[in-house]
Amino acid sequence: MKKTLLILFGSLLSIFAEAQFAGMMRGPQTEPLPEGFKPASTNTFLSQYPAVNAQTRQAMFRVVAPAARSIQLDLSGKKYPMTRDEKGIWSCVSDPQVVGFHYYAILIDSVAVMDRNTEAFFGSNWESSGIEIPEGPEGDYYRFNREIPHGQVRSIYYWSDINGLERHINVYVPAEYEQNPEKKYPVLYLVHGWGEDENGWSNQGHMAHIMDGLIASGKAVPMIVVMPSGDIKTNPDVRQASGDVTEIFAKNLVPYIDKTFRTYTDKEHRAMAGLSRGGFQTCMTVFNNMEMFAWMGTFSGFFVRGNEGVINAFNGVFKDPQVFDQQMKLLFISTGTEERNPKEQVEELKAHGIKNIVFHESEGTAHEWLTWRRALNDFAPKLFK
Amino acid sequence: MKKTLLILFGSLLSIFAEAQFAGMMRGPQTEPLPEGFKPASTNTFLSQYPAVNAQTRQAMFRVVAPAARSIQLDLSGKKYPMTRDEKGIWSCVSDPQVVGFHYYAILIDSVAVMDRNTEAFFGSNWESSGIEIPEGPEGDYYRFNREIPHGQVRSIYYWSDINGLERHINVYVPAEYEQNPEKKYPVLYLVHGWGEDENGWSNQGHMAHIMDGLIASGKAVPMIVVMPSGDIKTNPDVRQASGDVTEIFAKNLVPYIDKTFRTYTDKEHRAMAGLSRGGFQTCMTVFNNMEMFAWMGTFSGFFVRGNEGVINAFNGVFKDPQVFDQQMKLLFISTGTEERNPKEQVEELKAHGIKNIVFHESEGTAHEWLTWRRALNDFAPKLFK
Repeated sequence: MKKTLLILFGSLLSIFAEAQFAGMMRGPQTEPLPEGFKPASTNTFLSQYPAVNAQTRQAMFRVVAPAARSIQLDLSGKKYPMTRDEKGIWSCVSDPQVVGFHYYAILIDSVAVMDRNTEAFFGSNWESSGIEIPEGPEGDYYRFNREIPHGQVRSIYYWSDINGLERHINVYVPAEYEQNPEKKYPVLYLVHGWGEDENGWSNQGHMAHIMDGLIASGKAVPMIVVMPSGDIKTNPDVRQASGDVTEIFAKNLVPYIDKTFRTYTDKEHRAMAGLSRGGFQTCMTVFNNMEMFAWMGTFSGFFVRGNEGVINAFNGVFKDPQVFDQQMKLLFISTGTEERNPKEQVEELKAHGIKNIVFHESEGTAHEWLTWRRALNDFAPKLFK
Repeated sequence: MKKTLLILFGSLLSIFAEAQFAGMMRGPQTEPLPEGFKPASTNTFLSQYPAVNAQTRQAMFRVVAPAARSIQLDLSGKKYPMTRDEKGIWSCVSDPQVVGFHYYAILIDSVAVMDRNTEAFFGSNWESSGIEIPEGPEGDYYRFNREIPHGQVRSIYYWSDINGLERHINVYVPAEYEQNPEKKYPVLYLVHGWGEDENGWSNQGHMAHIMDGLIASGKAVPMIVVMPSGDIKTNPDVRQASGDVTEIFAKNLVPYIDKTFRTYTDKEHRAMAGLSRGGFQTCMTVFNNMEMFAWMGTFSGFFVRGNEGVINAFNGVFKDPQVFDQQMKLLFISTGTEERNPKEQVEELKAHGIKNIVFHESEGTAHEWLTWRRALNDFAPKLFK
């Protein structure tokens, strides 16, 4: 049968030849990769490059572009010149990277474009290329584990009357959900960062693998995780009518989830967390709806503006420590050690008398996805207990 | 609160400034669009371009690339030169297009790249840009309808021992599925075309909107739709061990689905269909496993190779018309009128005595997604009755 398919593909290929080969920037498919390198897990089907080296944590990139004048790689804030061989294939090898996910771009004659051989990820408000840097034991908790039961990430559209538009969400449902048709579950609302979208936690964050592992090992209680968009894309016809995203969360999204899934609807069974701007949106949503949430997390996103000081921030929610602790079972604040660190503000809140704060630092990481995978892995086990 | 956010975003923006603005090819965000044009529904959040005109069915493209020497648009097999204004913004307007989904690329100095302002779609075995051309009544059946209940598309990984790797599938579950925890459902396996992946039917095909409409109106019976990958991406460590994709479907996928969902497991409640190469894979899978499937569809994918003729094709499955009709309740063969048409072969099979064939033509469309959206819309109501 394979032979039949091959003959057939030959004739099919001609149909697609133009689309496939015109001005292509594919990497070569057949040459063996250099010693120690493997195709990145973020590559598309069949693509050999970019290739990653788990020992050195370097990545090797290739672009086929005979007619280009200059090509650079832009990865983790550094630009690398790429060198051209006689066939017009450009390549370079990066410095060692932090493990986990990194956005990158290829600069072709100064225009930042995507590498079509890797999956597309939404970041900085446009489509972007991304690469996963592997390492040994670090990543076990965020990789697929065939030995345990797996939850499902459900892609759903719901109608927002505030937004005047259908809104897309992803909802993680634990593996046991359908085996227990009468059981109710707590819900974590989990928001992406600036310039990303509702797919970020699934695609860049590997949240399903993390939650599967935590639930299978008994570290976290089985829960539903709702991943909405933190941005307001509106119908151009009703753009004026669109409200604030925290209003959409509280008035449209939470009621839709409670209607559609088997959830506990009291605040003790509802949490919200977010990364970067999503952490700030978590503060705005939770602090304005204290009757709805009893657990919250802000990952690289505890931003206090102006000169009023942390004790007076967010309309005075921290002013009376006892009242805050009665209303909020957990305020989880996390950061990477290589980015702006809210440690002093956390200390100030603790000294002020607030007890239900947990502070978490991700060693050696900056404003990047490894920081947030670690934060989720540390945060989720603390919920609903 | 909006003001707070704005102030905060100002400071956050500086963190992301380099990633966001370096060598950018964004379209301008603020200018009003020309009369009759709206942002395409395939655009990412905030992007004004490409813009589409529902009356003329034209699309307008813009690329910001001051340093590029020449830029072309490549859409539906035609290249359009783009013209540069004094700010380095390049633009062009396309010919009228068939409504529905079309892949496209931007050629920057001869290199085919993606437009980062539109969602990414996997086609021709790499990431690609795509645009949805709107029209009035035609698209009602494949657009989101807020008045009806909605099913869910579930993103799932399952383990394939033939493949030596976890495999990603999408599974559409009808809206009523969770309201009926004892009810079992029939299953349609639905495969993408050459160079696409398991996300194609959801993203390019709008299958969930189509199925929601057919089920809500009573035209189709509620069913589960499983969308697997028709390609064999393998673990590089076990590449030698990987088998045929039809073997993976029959031996790993179907048992996994029957274990994971509430399905009927007899052949009368199992169908398979695919587009283009997926239609051919459907023939190979079903004709080699006649005890597993009683319904099948091949959309622009009824390929008979060599000189043996259609009656003798596929190892003689059509030779005895009565045996075929006893085993197969429906062989649905469809095509666009503007592509290679298997009409004569269908007539030959009918003249040979096979009764359970339905032939469907999509008027005025070629080897493209509108052909396949129409095919699914016509095929699904005929199943499991």
